[in-house]
Amino acid sequence: MTQRHALAIHGGAGTIRRDNMDAATEEAFHEGLRASLRAGHAVLEQGGSALDAVTAAVMALEDNPLFNAGRGAVFTAGGTQEMDAAVMRGEDRGAGAVAGLFGPRNPVLAARAVMERTEHVLLIGEAARAFAASQGIPFASTEYFHTDSRWAALQAELARRSAAAPDMRDDAAKHGTVGAVARDRHGNLAAATSTGGMTGKMPGRVGDSPVIGAGTWADNATCAVSATGHGEYFIRWAAAHDIAARMRYLGETLDAAATHVVDELGKRGGSGGLIAIDREGRISLPFNCAGMYRGLIGTDGVPHTGIYRTPLRP
Amino acid sequence: MTQRHALAIHGGAGTIRRDNMDAATEEAFHEGLRASLRAGHAVLEQGGSALDAVTAAVMALEDNPLFNAGRGAVFTAGGTQEMDAAVMRGEDRGAGAVAGLFGPRNPVLAARAVMERTEHVLLIGEAARAFAASQGIPFASTEYFHTDSRWAALQAELARRSAAAPDMRDDAAKHGTVGAVARDRHGNLAAATSTGGMTGKMPGRVGDSPVIGAGTWADNATCAVSATGHGEYFIRWAAAHDIAARMRYLGETLDAAATHVVDELGKRGGSGGLIAIDREGRISLPFNCAGMYRGLIGTDGVPHTGIYRTPLRP
Repeated sequence: MTQRHALAIHGGAGTIRRDNMDAATEEAFHEGLRASLRAGHAVLEQGGSALDAVTAAVMALEDNPLFNAGRGAVFTAGGTQEMDAAVMRGEDRGAGAVAGLFGPRNPVLAARAVMERTEHVLLIGEAARAFAASQGIPFASTEYFHTDSRWAALQAELARRSAAAPDMRDDAAKHGTVGAVARDRHGNLAAATSTGGMTGKMPGRVGDSPVIGAGTWADNATCAVSATGHGEYFIRWAAAHDIAARMRYLGETLDAAATHVVDELGKRGGSGGLIAIDREGRISLPFNCAGMYRGLIGTDGVPHTGIYRTPLRP
Repeated sequence: MTQRHALAIHGGAGTIRRDNMDAATEEAFHEGLRASLRAGHAVLEQGGSALDAVTAAVMALEDNPLFNAGRGAVFTAGGTQEMDAAVMRGEDRGAGAVAGLFGPRNPVLAARAVMERTEHVLLIGEAARAFAASQGIPFASTEYFHTDSRWAALQAELARRSAAAPDMRDDAAKHGTVGAVARDRHGNLAAATSTGGMTGKMPGRVGDSPVIGAGTWADNATCAVSATGHGEYFIRWAAAHDIAARMRYLGETLDAAATHVVDELGKRGGSGGLIAIDREGRISLPFNCAGMYRGLIGTDGVPHTGIYRTPLRP
């Protein structure tokens, strides 16, 4: 049992509309998820740490323009890009996060540097950027982060607002997030989350991703969690920490606790989902909306991925 | 019972050194705490909301240069001032927060505007400032926020670092916070927290005050909490939400839950304390360090205040 390792990932949740999705695009999402799973699994298989595995898995998603994080980050109402990320380590509840960051190719690396190289947990804005630069974290150009489809999405959203038209967008695209949770061979847990936020968001708005206890949590005693969805609700319900609290204080299983929290959020109007893993490597992937880009991989190395409310496929 | 109202406040916790405190200074702290309690109590006595009461109480502390929030905010290593604040409302878990803000005379009003006038919970940096300005929240000048003693504290800290001398500072002064929790006649709870952060902190560092679930929490079903201390630990332990979770899931009393969390933080190296109130108006004021500037006031309108580990005094 102690040799067992496992990894789960997500690439955002929401009303993923099938009518916006052709077969080639759908396959590209599955392939992006599989690439992330393989990257994290390779770390775990070599005996690496859960923290290294979630970092690798999230970096693969940040590098893929299909997902709203890193390269594929959406644009704010001001035409800028502002990224948030967090990591947490289950052994000691070490945590690091950045918010309102533009520059590093992989914001998750900036979050990890905050955890590992400062006495702080959360750095924001220009200061987070300067810190990342001082640590030698690779930066990318404005062109690297410019995705035509994201720019078009912002223009469409600004036009919609001018016309006061109803919002028919796919909300997995407009406020997507990526994340990973893992359990390594040593029994340690870790979580990582990264996002570009919401298309057309007010600059300076920060959601749940970098809020420890809301969008990201890891504690070896209970679970590791990474959330995606309507971030304000996940903050107001301390969603990730509430799952850990239900396990610790009520003795609930991971799946019971995670499902309860996601269902309660749904009842309150907080659409979204999350990925969670416990100290035995059990995984739960609940969501209260049409779909969640998600996947998992165990010791056998076979990636399983899914988008809609249908069984994961190898 | 439903007519009962109550308010508790803090003005920071830590190693408050008696040898740095003359009688006149100590009395000035007590008077500052009493003024805050009276401001909040006046709201509650007139049938006002817990949210209005904690706002009034925190504004009084922000306006007092003795406390590290608003006017008395400490300076960063860069010689700037960056303030964080949050409010939360127990009826619906409405929440608002700002981080890395300079400009508004009362940062708590900016946090409240985020809750009441946006769909967001957390705004940071320049965008938070621009939002506050757009909402007509009063700003103050750089001179207003310049306190000679805070500037001298920064110079002393920078000199200490240059000399690599041991840190002998009073840590309630170097990373103080102010906060309030209340229960109004209608049975509603609210919490508010405001801080200038740590003297000589890295610009862009954000502690627990604006992190909902860490330094600030309110839910009518359980309690309202405002914390003060070594913020990174309060974030990594989701301190404020953990108290609510222990009450809800373990059936602990407010005092048992609050004391447990503060004791656990102390064992891990997280010095500090917090103020908490439950739906019956019961108050708990635990801290794991030498002292906490604190006070409470009930329906009788008599303020009680304290600094060290001695009984509160009228």
